[in-house]
Amino acid sequence: MDQADIPDITHQSHVFTDGLLLDCGVHLASLTVAYRSYGTLNAERSNAVLICHALTGDQYVAERHPVTGKGPWWDQLVGSGRPIDTDRYFVICSNVLGGCMGTTGPMEPRAPGEAPWGTDFPPITIRDMVRAQKRLIDRLAIDRLFAVIGGSMGGMQVLEWAATYPEAVFAALPIATAAYHSAQNIAFNEVGRQAIFADPDFNGGQYYATGRVPAGGLGVARMVAHITYLSEQALNRKFGRKLQGSAAAPLAMFGDMFQVESYLQHQGSTFVRRFDANSYLTITRAMDYFDLAAEHEGDLSRAFAGTPTRFCIISFSSDWLFPTAESRAVARALNKAAANVSFVEVESDKGHDAFLLDEPDLRRIVAGFLSGCAAHAGLDPQ
Amino acid sequence: MDQADIPDITHQSHVFTDGLLLDCGVHLASLTVAYRSYGTLNAERSNAVLICHALTGDQYVAERHPVTGKGPWWDQLVGSGRPIDTDRYFVICSNVLGGCMGTTGPMEPRAPGEAPWGTDFPPITIRDMVRAQKRLIDRLAIDRLFAVIGGSMGGMQVLEWAATYPEAVFAALPIATAAYHSAQNIAFNEVGRQAIFADPDFNGGQYYATGRVPAGGLGVARMVAHITYLSEQALNRKFGRKLQGSAAAPLAMFGDMFQVESYLQHQGSTFVRRFDANSYLTITRAMDYFDLAAEHEGDLSRAFAGTPTRFCIISFSSDWLFPTAESRAVARALNKAAANVSFVEVESDKGHDAFLLDEPDLRRIVAGFLSGCAAHAGLDPQ
Repeated sequence: MDQADIPDITHQSHVFTDGLLLDCGVHLASLTVAYRSYGTLNAERSNAVLICHALTGDQYVAERHPVTGKGPWWDQLVGSGRPIDTDRYFVICSNVLGGCMGTTGPMEPRAPGEAPWGTDFPPITIRDMVRAQKRLIDRLAIDRLFAVIGGSMGGMQVLEWAATYPEAVFAALPIATAAYHSAQNIAFNEVGRQAIFADPDFNGGQYYATGRVPAGGLGVARMVAHITYLSEQALNRKFGRKLQGSAAAPLAMFGDMFQVESYLQHQGSTFVRRFDANSYLTITRAMDYFDLAAEHEGDLSRAFAGTPTRFCIISFSSDWLFPTAESRAVARALNKAAANVSFVEVESDKGHDAFLLDEPDLRRIVAGFLSGCAAHAGLDPQ
Repeated sequence: MDQADIPDITHQSHVFTDGLLLDCGVHLASLTVAYRSYGTLNAERSNAVLICHALTGDQYVAERHPVTGKGPWWDQLVGSGRPIDTDRYFVICSNVLGGCMGTTGPMEPRAPGEAPWGTDFPPITIRDMVRAQKRLIDRLAIDRLFAVIGGSMGGMQVLEWAATYPEAVFAALPIATAAYHSAQNIAFNEVGRQAIFADPDFNGGQYYATGRVPAGGLGVARMVAHITYLSEQALNRKFGRKLQGSAAAPLAMFGDMFQVESYLQHQGSTFVRRFDANSYLTITRAMDYFDLAAEHEGDLSRAFAGTPTRFCIISFSSDWLFPTAESRAVARALNKAAANVSFVEVESDKGHDAFLLDEPDLRRIVAGFLSGCAAHAGLDPQ
């Protein structure tokens, strides 16, 4: 497979020429943060909502994607008249640090005119991602975000925002997430990484000059991750043991005999057209590192001591990647810190992916929480 | 990595020169079944126990493994004085059709003096595996097995034995298994297969002559499968987020930073020394095809109509690969067929792997069921 199309897009971005000091000790000489915004910042600059994207998401939260041509990835929640209402809020979404849609990451040149970082890109943390976002928010002259919202790895960023910049977050909505990455989740990420390493086109991470990308390895990584995003019920309902329409022989040895195989292969092959393998390595590592309690002497409640932020924590009953128990642990730590917190487990059989899908309960909860918070924040209703 | 050591072992086996007709319609010209036996067949030839191994198991169920040097794989259950007592029973375990430990499979020559089958080996089914075992049992002049026992894919064979040769099975013990492979399990198998296909050393399945094996791809396949064998609790208890002792930097970008990564990589790399990639493809496909109800007009109870076999079905509470619900469905079908069936869910936090591990409840249940059946079968107590 040829080089991905990613580099050819001109993204809306801000450049921070003083760079960014990372948790690992490396000082990035220059920082670029690519982002999109929707709606209008009010005169008080108090209606900004930051949306944090997940592992393979990006800033195109409420518009057609420039690479895939697909619709907005959070159409369920973001837009005019939606729960995160772009008529009411100034919605910002930035590509994460380490990403591949314009923000500083492994496919960017180490310095102007030099070769891309590749695997020499320094390891980053969720906190580094949040620090980069904070630079953007400062540049936009926003002192306090009305809300920070995200699911999965986006939810990790929400928790980190509330812990690191409590005064800058009025309301926090971490969805389908956890305060640390579990051994099982690390294990699945490691399988994906090993699949990428095993692909000869990976070429030690310096594949940019070869005109080839490790499509096989990255595709396998995406396939295994995708299984973890779905519930067993969802897979059974969608595919069960149904055969492909074109399956000639009932006992074909190879090829996509079962529909679920064809679906997964499609997920893998479309993914590699829009995502960079080194970014995948960097970002999965950042998720694995994440352990918010460890950043606070092993006591998660200390991360939120004295927090002024209002929290609404949402989990999904069939999510086995970030099970409800992990959201409940966050809610318990917030209670211990005497924070203002509500916690809802949404009944759904769609698995982890439910946060991206049509879930009326999710829409109602987000709309209700934000409306209540808007009243408390003194935001004028429309 | 060099060619696996597998071909150099001389296995105990029987050759069936009339071959075997497979479900796919292909007639294998010759069939070899490699096996091991333990204990003594009694004069009535009525004390034989057939053990069916799982995907990556083999016939070395009760002795040191000739390739790995590891101890017996089912030491918990099989041996002198164990629940499957080799002082009392004549225990047989054969390598499955399609395997790589002496039984006819993809790494065997298509015909004497010819090249190995590779991916041209015909697709096989669980029923084909059972037919090959039946040939061995016939050759040993055993009319009726006292018991057929197996876990995971071994349990699929147990169910197929009872359905196909009911008069030849006095007692059946399917453990941690199901009557069909679920969409999620097919999906995980497909990830493993795609990882093998993506490895350039796979060479379209004809790697035997190259002196190289697709170690990277097969290792990734083993890693992802291994995660599914463990429960999240087991992974947390064993590894949690513990770092490797040698992890120099807290933010190492690559390498085995977390213990769980090192463990999985070890599982992958040791596996490729004893297993053939084409066998892995063939056997995972056989698991995916398995749907016992579909073989009986969609009604699982018909598979067991009028069965004389006594069944004991065992599942494990934390097994998410073959969840208790799937064992319960088998028990329900057996009840509908008015079969003699008991069903036990063993409380365990060890996941699917529990059937291979130290589980006192499992030992007690197997020992109790077999003792009761032995009395009914008129087998003399020791």
